[in-house]
Amino acid sequence: MSLIDAWVAPAAGQKMVKQQVDLGPLGSDEVEVQVEHCGLCHSDLSMLNNDWGFAQYPAVLGHEAVGRVVEVGTGAKGLKVGQRVGIGWTAGSCMHCRPCKSGDQHLCAQAQPTIAGHRGGFASRVRSHWAWAVPIPDALPAADAGPLLCGGITVFNPIMMHARPMSRVGIVGIGGLGHMGVKFAAAYGCEVTAFTSSERKFDEARGFGAHRVVATRDPGAVRQLAGSLDLLVVTTNVALDWDAMLGTLAPNGRMHVVGAVLEPIPVTVFPLIMKQGCVSASPTGSPVAIEDMLAFAARHQVLPTTEHFPMSQINTAFERLHEGKARYRIVLDADF
Amino acid sequence: MSLIDAWVAPAAGQKMVKQQVDLGPLGSDEVEVQVEHCGLCHSDLSMLNNDWGFAQYPAVLGHEAVGRVVEVGTGAKGLKVGQRVGIGWTAGSCMHCRPCKSGDQHLCAQAQPTIAGHRGGFASRVRSHWAWAVPIPDALPAADAGPLLCGGITVFNPIMMHARPMSRVGIVGIGGLGHMGVKFAAAYGCEVTAFTSSERKFDEARGFGAHRVVATRDPGAVRQLAGSLDLLVVTTNVALDWDAMLGTLAPNGRMHVVGAVLEPIPVTVFPLIMKQGCVSASPTGSPVAIEDMLAFAARHQVLPTTEHFPMSQINTAFERLHEGKARYRIVLDADF
Repeated sequence: MSLIDAWVAPAAGQKMVKQQVDLGPLGSDEVEVQVEHCGLCHSDLSMLNNDWGFAQYPAVLGHEAVGRVVEVGTGAKGLKVGQRVGIGWTAGSCMHCRPCKSGDQHLCAQAQPTIAGHRGGFASRVRSHWAWAVPIPDALPAADAGPLLCGGITVFNPIMMHARPMSRVGIVGIGGLGHMGVKFAAAYGCEVTAFTSSERKFDEARGFGAHRVVATRDPGAVRQLAGSLDLLVVTTNVALDWDAMLGTLAPNGRMHVVGAVLEPIPVTVFPLIMKQGCVSASPTGSPVAIEDMLAFAARHQVLPTTEHFPMSQINTAFERLHEGKARYRIVLDADF
Repeated sequence: MSLIDAWVAPAAGQKMVKQQVDLGPLGSDEVEVQVEHCGLCHSDLSMLNNDWGFAQYPAVLGHEAVGRVVEVGTGAKGLKVGQRVGIGWTAGSCMHCRPCKSGDQHLCAQAQPTIAGHRGGFASRVRSHWAWAVPIPDALPAADAGPLLCGGITVFNPIMMHARPMSRVGIVGIGGLGHMGVKFAAAYGCEVTAFTSSERKFDEARGFGAHRVVATRDPGAVRQLAGSLDLLVVTTNVALDWDAMLGTLAPNGRMHVVGAVLEPIPVTVFPLIMKQGCVSASPTGSPVAIEDMLAFAARHQVLPTTEHFPMSQINTAFERLHEGKARYRIVLDADF
């Protein structure tokens, strides 16, 4: 018996209830972490409602957990009891497939999501494979580091892979992911254009570091940017005027999608050929990418803009996220 | 007066007739080339029929010209009278925009197509900016080098940019472009899978160097390749089962389109995210890329498989291309 306290969603769309859950014996490659804080990501809401069809109930959600290691499996490497770590979208990967051996563990076909078929971070304790419990630098405040572990790495990964400090970067959607994207791209040294459908966010986007803010739904404003961006990171999951968005790309430009857009994106080929352009996408990032992001975030003090709730108000927090009111990322503080 | 003989298309869809054309005075940055051979590319046919809407008539088509420099403008650099050169899709670029200065002259917004607003290579002589008249290595047979200058560079460019010799490369469409793609990818050291809708081409594709041939329209065969290709180069211009095609990509895989597919390609986002995949496209390639391709082609004796016609049979040759009978690339030999 290895009992923890957890907020459990009994079935799709239902309110979470506090229960004791038995995690069973710790795997030899696992570590167990005492949760201090856990970010609330939009994908927790998607999984609560089974929007993507692979949720498993009863579910313990939460995949932006920060806390201290309290137990280390016999085969776990590189971590000590007492060390502060973060656990994001992925709680484990096979470690022997081609992507894992290449350092792309986040692309492992057997990767274990933290919140599907595994108990997540809205709990007193959470576990992961040792490789996926990433040490949090002391210079990062633990209370706000959680959202970096999923939302943060999701936007940092394309910047890290595809931007240089000279790049002209657009961030589409200024929400949980996008506001971190603007902060990261600005700290990276890029020229940053924020696209938002909410005029109320214009000033805040500038505050996050955007050099220019454009109304996503203003075709004239978007078309004025024709041919001017090297990298456009799409963080929303709604259909946009894709021809106009692709039109903002400069020669050799790239539109990179990290939002789970449900409708296929119609890519008009001829203009993409003429500018030698690219449409790419990615999920989160590897453990090393997360390490690099955390070191970069600590050095530049890039942190999400957060609202805190005690974890016991988890259902209220989910409701606020559902209503689109979160500014910009909710963190639940463990209060078991 | 600077009269040449040329095969002139008087208007869209009409047969070409031999006429004398006055090229006017040679520009200071231009060279003039006595045409020996000129490849017939599918885009000549598209321009003859004004399929893309930017043809200008009367038109002199032909943009895979090989011949000897007969005149050099006062400001032209690096070329001598008597030197054998090739001129492809582009006859000039501004040389001072950002892409030009970055070595991506093929992405210049002011690039001058050889066959629109400029007289092409189905003529006794053709001109280009000096930078776009690329020397042909002596080790390449001039009679068959022409198709490398447009079709060849179009498929070599994505291989050069995105493949390594360890890559698993798919070439979709075994026609004028695709058969050169198979030859180049094989010479590059890659594992090559050819996709063709014509079962009659299976053996020939193997002869070009494909390690495996798959029927494009056999969903089972395509799905068997799921997750197995690093780079898929699409040379056709027809709609395919894009989900199945993208499904063949391995993690970090790329589908690169060089065929002028008219219908937008619907890109399903979620699987592209999960494999960190990419859909990209490109036109031809820069002068330096053409130089590198020609040196590579000479070293490995990569040449198109050609059918030759005297240029005086130009209308017969266009008809043969229109009927899809060319195996695999037609070259017209100047006989003025």
